[in-house]
Amino acid sequence: MKRSEVFAAQEKARQILAGAGISLTSQESANIEVADLGLDRLASEGLELVTYVNTDRYCAKELVLFPGQTCPEHRHPSISGREGKQETFRCRRGVVWLYVEGPSTPEIQAKVPKASKNYYTVFHEIVLQPGEQYTIPPDTLHWFQAGPDGALVSEFSSTSYDEFDVFTDPRIHRQPVIED
Amino acid sequence: MKRSEVFAAQEKARQILAGAGISLTSQESANIEVADLGLDRLASEGLELVTYVNTDRYCAKELVLFPGQTCPEHRHPSISGREGKQETFRCRRGVVWLYVEGPSTPEIQAKVPKASKNYYTVFHEIVLQPGEQYTIPPDTLHWFQAGPDGALVSEFSSTSYDEFDVFTDPRIHRQPVIED
Repeated sequence: MKRSEVFAAQEKARQILAGAGISLTSQESANIEVADLGLDRLASEGLELVTYVNTDRYCAKELVLFPGQTCPEHRHPSISGREGKQETFRCRRGVVWLYVEGPSTPEIQAKVPKASKNYYTVFHEIVLQPGEQYTIPPDTLHWFQAGPDGALVSEFSSTSYDEFDVFTDPRIHRQPVIED
Repeated sequence: MKRSEVFAAQEKARQILAGAGISLTSQESANIEVADLGLDRLASEGLELVTYVNTDRYCAKELVLFPGQTCPEHRHPSISGREGKQETFRCRRGVVWLYVEGPSTPEIQAKVPKASKNYYTVFHEIVLQPGEQYTIPPDTLHWFQAGPDGALVSEFSSTSYDEFDVFTDPRIHRQPVIED
């Protein structure tokens, strides 16, 4: 990902957060995480994050999704015998289509990203409007996509160990690589 | 606490939450918790809460404080060998004066509630403006008060066991008693 692309995405995320009335410290604002997951098609697959706190007991983040942007399918496995991450997504703005393990919904509302369609395998649809939330059990495959206006999602969870997330798409690496 | 007082406080809390752009489900809105802590002086001591989620691993709440309203001094002890609650207060609106164990601040900004002044014993001041946060270690005495415009605070924490909170004021009971 080019540095200029990171800056542009951060600025867009800042506007969405400010528009939702969310105050950030200047340090948080300057360090909004832009995750293209190594796929280099941020507009369709990726997300933007502000991590408020991540202790050895709990974590809280804001997730920003641009219109139609998708967080690819992944799960949070156990690590060294410690149960995988449990997380609650609470929609704040926009609509979020969330997919988890379970009976497939016949006609899902999200559009599976074409370039990666073999790596989306769970299609049990949960629709989250503002004020609605859903808790994902540990080690459960899930992916989610914002509706046409983008979305803002608060994530409350047990401790995050992002580097241990298991993505279905083997091309994905969670840690960003930024080029000048 | 009279039921009519609970309803009035819920309505005030709803307005503050809506004013901050926070969407609630109709069930959450109808069940905003009004905690007068058995002291029957809600305007000076007490708080209003929406608990989004409280699993066996983490918890997330919104805390509403009316202008000058104070959450009395308490701590979260270990329970059955499990470490006490760790919590992060993130100010969203207004200003919050938070007091924790540590060197006393010479001239604190909060006004200790007169009717309970013997039960406030820690005076290390932390000022939280919107976007600022502070993490309170387990089993640490703390209390907090909203500034003149009230405040809205997001609380991210380990699991809440409110019924085991230890308040410095022995007259306090955490569970509400509502009279018709």
